[in-house]
Amino acid sequence: MVGDRKLTPQAEDFSAWYNEIVYKAELAAHSPVRGCIVIRPYGYRIWELMQGALDAMFKDSGHENAYFPLFLPQSALDREAAHVEGFAPETAVVTHAGGAKLEEPLVVRPTSEAIIWPIVADWIDSYRDLPVLLNQWANVVRWEKRTRPFLRTTEFLWQEGHTAHVDEAGAREETLRMLGIYRTFMEEWMAMPVYTGRKTAAERFAGAVDTFSCEALMKDNKALQTGTSHYLGQNFARAFDVRFQTVDGEHAYVHNTSWGVSTRLIGGLVMMHGDDTGLILPPRLAPIQAVIVPIWRDEAQQASVIAAAREVEQELKTAGVRVRVDDREGMNPGAKYYEWERKGVPLRLEIGPRDVESRSVMTVRRFTPEGEERKQPIDRGTLVADLLVKLELMQDELFQLASERLAANTTTGIEDYEQFKQLIEQSGGFVFTGWCGDTDCEARVKEETKTTIRLIAGDDLASHVPPVKCLCGKESKVEVVRARAY
Amino acid sequence: MVGDRKLTPQAEDFSAWYNEIVYKAELAAHSPVRGCIVIRPYGYRIWELMQGALDAMFKDSGHENAYFPLFLPQSALDREAAHVEGFAPETAVVTHAGGAKLEEPLVVRPTSEAIIWPIVADWIDSYRDLPVLLNQWANVVRWEKRTRPFLRTTEFLWQEGHTAHVDEAGAREETLRMLGIYRTFMEEWMAMPVYTGRKTAAERFAGAVDTFSCEALMKDNKALQTGTSHYLGQNFARAFDVRFQTVDGEHAYVHNTSWGVSTRLIGGLVMMHGDDTGLILPPRLAPIQAVIVPIWRDEAQQASVIAAAREVEQELKTAGVRVRVDDREGMNPGAKYYEWERKGVPLRLEIGPRDVESRSVMTVRRFTPEGEERKQPIDRGTLVADLLVKLELMQDELFQLASERLAANTTTGIEDYEQFKQLIEQSGGFVFTGWCGDTDCEARVKEETKTTIRLIAGDDLASHVPPVKCLCGKESKVEVVRARAY
Repeated sequence: MVGDRKLTPQAEDFSAWYNEIVYKAELAAHSPVRGCIVIRPYGYRIWELMQGALDAMFKDSGHENAYFPLFLPQSALDREAAHVEGFAPETAVVTHAGGAKLEEPLVVRPTSEAIIWPIVADWIDSYRDLPVLLNQWANVVRWEKRTRPFLRTTEFLWQEGHTAHVDEAGAREETLRMLGIYRTFMEEWMAMPVYTGRKTAAERFAGAVDTFSCEALMKDNKALQTGTSHYLGQNFARAFDVRFQTVDGEHAYVHNTSWGVSTRLIGGLVMMHGDDTGLILPPRLAPIQAVIVPIWRDEAQQASVIAAAREVEQELKTAGVRVRVDDREGMNPGAKYYEWERKGVPLRLEIGPRDVESRSVMTVRRFTPEGEERKQPIDRGTLVADLLVKLELMQDELFQLASERLAANTTTGIEDYEQFKQLIEQSGGFVFTGWCGDTDCEARVKEETKTTIRLIAGDDLASHVPPVKCLCGKESKVEVVRARAY
Repeated sequence: MVGDRKLTPQAEDFSAWYNEIVYKAELAAHSPVRGCIVIRPYGYRIWELMQGALDAMFKDSGHENAYFPLFLPQSALDREAAHVEGFAPETAVVTHAGGAKLEEPLVVRPTSEAIIWPIVADWIDSYRDLPVLLNQWANVVRWEKRTRPFLRTTEFLWQEGHTAHVDEAGAREETLRMLGIYRTFMEEWMAMPVYTGRKTAAERFAGAVDTFSCEALMKDNKALQTGTSHYLGQNFARAFDVRFQTVDGEHAYVHNTSWGVSTRLIGGLVMMHGDDTGLILPPRLAPIQAVIVPIWRDEAQQASVIAAAREVEQELKTAGVRVRVDDREGMNPGAKYYEWERKGVPLRLEIGPRDVESRSVMTVRRFTPEGEERKQPIDRGTLVADLLVKLELMQDELFQLASERLAANTTTGIEDYEQFKQLIEQSGGFVFTGWCGDTDCEARVKEETKTTIRLIAGDDLASHVPPVKCLCGKESKVEVVRARAY
């Protein structure tokens, strides 16, 4: 049951709002295992819809799914120095199994490079076997100190792409291709505009030569990293001896990439669109796109409105709309409206006795751009066609609203450190500044302002008029975008 | 690359044949983790097709997917006595995480009853919240002593259904409904006839009141349990305090079920249809339903046959056929035939220069019922329609062949123990006998003949003329079917 207490308003405490809505909208439930949540059916259905869209895009770009073991031998993880340094502190370790102590402890995968490449090395003889384009849908475990539902959980679900290429150019192209696929997915399915670009060395994936990421702006003006794509160079190829025979008969190490998105996207979706009433789901990812609420006073009315509701349900189902009739008894329509609004269902269709008579349906949108009507009666004759258009329109509008919010909360050309601090404290958002390129400077600004460099301009991220100075006053070498982030 | 060495003939050593084909057909690969395999893309695609079909059937019957944590607190597993006794000896245990020893060890789920019910208990207030119909696609770990690829691996992928009902009748109905869904899936998708029925107490799931299973006959005449469905009674409800308010305002424990199939099905598919040449895949589960091999001698021919192959590919794709063109250079057509036959692709389409001229395609079936033509030229004009019919026909034929084999290797009415032993030694298969109902007798026959009682006749399993005596000479109380099994 959806809890009855009102949500904390976002403006009062966004973090409290988030923690309440993920449970009250039945996306997640608490579990007795530290830092692990349960993904409830309503939340899991969103994940399935995300998976369906992403998986089709991965397959269309030539990737194949496979499945590698959950456990990594500790010794395998140890073979890539930067990688083990990054991940070892947060691993969960199986020391006993089948009633006995294991000779070598097994690490529950925090990511799978260290189990995949030693195995796939055997499948690669010559350049003809490349590229290898693999993806895996799996659970991973990272023992995080502070966890938050979906955003950072000890166990989470994700997909991890792992590819091998003959040369750097091929691998870099793949890295950016997948970053682009993520961006397309986030824009077109999640209605979530993102900045995409390169990370600084300090923010790189452990073992990568270059990390690229998607950065979205949540409604509290904090950034969320929503997907990453890494060019791994030959680091893992050398560690796991992944070699091939070149066209010229030489032996060479492959160039690898890896890329992933996770159930964190569900949290991102919540914080991107939700409001004080609850979730707002983009139609393409809504488990229920339209809920039909029949309204009656007596039994005679009940039979006819439910019959009409079932007819409409069938018509919409046939047209491919995900629809549900809420004909629960002993619950007034208002309580139903409240529940489905909280759960972010894009459209509500009300059918009362008068609607049955006039063969029409009252449609109510979960959100509208300013100045537009929320409620609209639609004739049954054109209902299906009208709703299909409406759902597409709402998907676009949601992206439009989010894009306007992103633009409105992005500031460029900031050089003065005090001005930067003020901006971050007062409004947050993305702030483009210069950067001297010094890692100590990066760390100091992070320490002092709780912001991080999210991305470096260039590559995927459009540059502006480049600032002359870094926040530290030294000469700027590159333009970067900074923000407080999850 | 598919290894070149010939497969061991099934008649010579079925077990060796199986172990070779799963690797040579690139269904699986070895991993450095004891008892864990890698599911390679070709094998994983079969799993995805299985998942797609099953998931649709689960959803159509009202089930919703969710996701529960990988780890169970040891104390949760301990709460149902029979359950922990059954599973504790084969668990993998995380004792350290995040660089420290855990206060309470975490068990990697061998199955999820013990994590699901204490959580879902909170979602159930009254009879209105029932039934709860959940399913989870997940990995589980059971530390098995002897493992075999797909059939018994330390980690495996499966789905586990978990449901709660107001009464025994509802839960028992669900148990049999899901058994029926499994049967339908195995028959219609896997072309795998199965016996379905009830297990003896000795063969029950740890914690169940009744276990039902699907039993298929592999080509070596050994049985494989391919799916199980359990009526759990109130055992778990009592252990985890899963109660609800009845219509009358009383408090009562729910009645639970659980049911699952796993990647073991891939092994079953291999052993159900494969032959000395390799895999034989039923069209509905074949990753590639038709492979097109263009045949050329010189470059001029190459261009035209590949162009024709691509045209045919496009036509078949549009019609929904999973098709691939094998235009690899430096490999003769015979080597390609060999590889795709080994991988069990149902149809091969050969296109040479003369086929291009005559606008026809030579089709070659991976298998034919006795006396029918394997090769058939088909006119391009009717190709798509003909192939769609052919694929459906092959699906049916494969089920027909398997059903005939099952019938031919099922013996009924055996009462004499010596005769039983001889039958098992000489031909194997399913043998219907009487049973006195005594667990010691069951254990003795198992010990002496390496057979087990697979199912008890009645329920789903049709009875024959019931034997008067058990194999032990005492009066038979029920008819059972026995077999050696994986």
